Amino acid sequence: MKIFCADLEGVFIPEIWIAVARKTGIDELKLTTRDISDYDELMTKRLSLMAEHGLTIHDIQSVIAEMDPLEGALDTLQWIRERAQIIILSDTFEEFARPMMKKLEFPTLLCHNLTIDGKGRITGYNIRQQEQKKQAVRALQGLNYEVVAFGDSYNDTGMLLQADKGFLFSPPDNVAADFPRLPVAKDYNDLKHMIDSCL
Amino acid sequence: MKIFCADLEGVFIPEIWIAVARKTGIDELKLTTRDISDYDELMTKRLSLMAEHGLTIHDIQSVIAEMDPLEGALDTLQWIRERAQIIILSDTFEEFARPMMKKLEFPTLLCHNLTIDGKGRITGYNIRQQEQKKQAVRALQGLNYEVVAFGDSYNDTGMLLQADKGFLFSPPDNVAADFPRLPVAKDYNDLKHMIDSCL
Repeated sequence: MKIFCADLEGVFIPEIWIAVARKTGIDELKLTTRDISDYDELMTKRLSLMAEHGLTIHDIQSVIAEMDPLEGALDTLQWIRERAQIIILSDTFEEFARPMMKKLEFPTLLCHNLTIDGKGRITGYNIRQQEQKKQAVRALQGLNYEVVAFGDSYNDTGMLLQADKGFLFSPPDNVAADFPRLPVAKDYNDLKHMIDSCL
Repeated sequence: MKIFCADLEGVFIPEIWIAVARKTGIDELKLTTRDISDYDELMTKRLSLMAEHGLTIHDIQSVIAEMDPLEGALDTLQWIRERAQIIILSDTFEEFARPMMKKLEFPTLLCHNLTIDGKGRITGYNIRQQEQKKQAVRALQGLNYEVVAFGDSYNDTGMLLQADKGFLFSPPDNVAADFPRLPVAKDYNDLKHMIDSCL
C-alpha cells in the first residue's frame, strides 16, 4: 500500500517567516531553510531577532491568520486526499501552523512545538526529533507502506531520499542543482501527474 | 507532543458489515470483531459468504455509500482536529472506507486493502501488517509522540495497551468486562472531556 508524505511551506502554503518578515519589516527574518540548511542555527537566529524586536506569538499568529494557502493548494490537496492517504511533514511548529491547517481542512501534520511564556514570548522551540521527516518516512515503511514523498527544500531531502519514491516540488534553483537525481514537479499539474503515475 | 489514535467503526461510523448484513439479509455477515476476536477467521468467513451469495465490491460500496457517520461523529472529529493531530487506525479496507472518509472530511486513515478481480469480485484481502494498530502506536512513540488511543473492540485493545494512555469508547459489555483496567468514555461528551484532560 502507498502513502504520501509532503512538506508544507513552499508546497501548500507560503513560507511563514517570509510573510512575517514582510509584515514586520525585519529583513533578516526572510531567511529560510532554502538559505541556511542548518535548522537549529536558523531558528536560534529567528528567536533572537523576535526577542530583539519585542515580537510575541500573538504578533506572529496575527500575520499567519491573514495568510492564505498557495493558489490551487486546497484543491490539489483535496484531489490527493480523495485518492490516497497523505501526511504533512513540516519543520514548522503546531502553534504557527494551526490557522493554516484549518484553511487546508486539517490534513494530519507532524511537526514541532514552541515554549511560550505567560506574556506570549516564545522562549524556546522543541524539536520533536532530529531528522523527523526522514524518521517519519522510515516509520511508515516499518508499517509496510511504500512511501512517496515530495518537498521543496534542503530540510526535505532526507525524507525524499529515504522514501521509496521522492521528488522535488517547485524547488529553488540551488536545491534542484544540489540534488540532480531527484525528479522535479514544477507545479500542481505536474504534481498530480506524478501522483497519478504512482497509484 | 501528544497525538491521538482512534478506531473507526463503532467510534465514528456504524459497523459496515452489520449494515451490509441488514441490506442483504445475510445474517451471518453481522458478526464483527466484537464477536470473533480472530480477524483472519472473521474475514475469511465474510468473503466466503459473499462469494456464496454472488456479492461484488459494487454491492458493498452501494450499501456503504448510503451509510452516514454516527450522529455527532463529524462534529466531534472536527473538534478534535482543531485541537490536536489524530490518525484513524482501522482494520477495514481502503475500498470500503473511502465513501465514509469523505463524509468525515478525510482524516488520515491507516488500514488494509482488498484484491478485486475484473468483475468486481473480492478475491482476497491484504492485511498490511499483523497487529497494525499496535505497531502504528509504537511507530508514533518512536517519533517521540505521546500517544492517546481510543476504540471499542477486541482488535483495539493492543493499541490501547501500547498507547501512553488508552481508553474504550462506547464498548460492548463483554469487551469492557474483559479489560476492566481500561477507562471507558460512554459518549462523545465523555470523549471530549477525556481528550481535554490530556491536552
